[in-house]
Amino acid sequence: MRMSELSRRSGVPVATIKYYLREGLLPPGERTSRTQARYDESHVERLALVRALVESAGLSLARTRQVLAAVDTPQSMVDLLAGVTEASCDDVGGRGRARALVDRLGWSEVPESGDAMGRLEEALAALEVAGLELPDGQLDRVGALMGEVAALEVDGIPADDPAAAARYVLVGTALVAPVLQALREVGHVHHSVRRFGAGAAVATDPGQ
Amino acid sequence: MRMSELSRRSGVPVATIKYYLREGLLPPGERTSRTQARYDESHVERLALVRALVESAGLSLARTRQVLAAVDTPQSMVDLLAGVTEASCDDVGGRGRARALVDRLGWSEVPESGDAMGRLEEALAALEVAGLELPDGQLDRVGALMGEVAALEVDGIPADDPAAAARYVLVGTALVAPVLQALREVGHVHHSVRRFGAGAAVATDPGQ
Repeated sequence: MRMSELSRRSGVPVATIKYYLREGLLPPGERTSRTQARYDESHVERLALVRALVESAGLSLARTRQVLAAVDTPQSMVDLLAGVTEASCDDVGGRGRARALVDRLGWSEVPESGDAMGRLEEALAALEVAGLELPDGQLDRVGALMGEVAALEVDGIPADDPAAAARYVLVGTALVAPVLQALREVGHVHHSVRRFGAGAAVATDPGQ
Repeated sequence: MRMSELSRRSGVPVATIKYYLREGLLPPGERTSRTQARYDESHVERLALVRALVESAGLSLARTRQVLAAVDTPQSMVDLLAGVTEASCDDVGGRGRARALVDRLGWSEVPESGDAMGRLEEALAALEVAGLELPDGQLDRVGALMGEVAALEVDGIPADDPAAAARYVLVGTALVAPVLQALREVGHVHHSVRRFGAGAAVATDPGQ
């Protein structure tokens, strides 16, 4: 199909498609003349994916490019999930908080390297900086619950279709995150109504 | 203290402090001359909070301003958690997916309005756009788990100190989110090693 039909089918404006082509988020079509190219179903699918990552999940262009590269490159499921890349392997120092937590959770197979462990360490350090450290007990219970969420997701990975599996994992990790965060926030409302009552007034004026 | 000492105490460069002052993220000090002002402990604390929100939690300036305004303004705990603002109340249409899920979870006290329900609806719609809709059963189990996380957090809210409570809730909601997401990703690694083995090769070349 031509670009105009690709635009109609995908609902993405022609100017945006051209931008994605320039940025390398969409592979070029098959050239049919000096000024025209032909696109196929794979382009329609890829556009839906790019759109979801950029517009819905709010990923940066750089992060979207990483996710797409990972989808397109053969690697082991575990490396894929761990985000183990050369770039992330040089810094494995200073992950004491993350390691201690992961060990308490009994997740001892998790390698020290990898983006996920680095992000966990950073996130725990940020809580400390803000003076909001969680007690170990609460952190462990929250960790166990997030482990159950992760287990449900890993169980859902299709084992017989590696390409579908990679897509499921990478896109799911990015797009399910906002669902979980929103569920947590709605859960806050639900539980605070139960604990404090619907009209519970809180004077939060720090001047008092 | 002078700005130079505020900078030393907080570890935030003078230029950045001036920027936060201009943007209204930090209240002005008490003017002592035409060119100087005095700052106190409240400025040190506020700077730590701004830094955590902007640098660690990665909130935008606009969102940081909202969180700080909410911390500084008396409102009920439930409104605080729901993010019920005038701006968010005009659009309560088209939240069918979120409402259905929240009803299945038995969270019937949660009002239709509010930012959290809006974000849940958007996040569920984004999954659908990407062709990654979760089956109701899985969504319900994940929702129940996130509800348990939220319950733990609401239980931890200090009931006797409203200002501390507001800070805990708002800052916690922003700063704990990256911890949960990182725990989920590390959990993916743990459970995929268990399911697929450490070396499980996945050929994800979509050209095959």
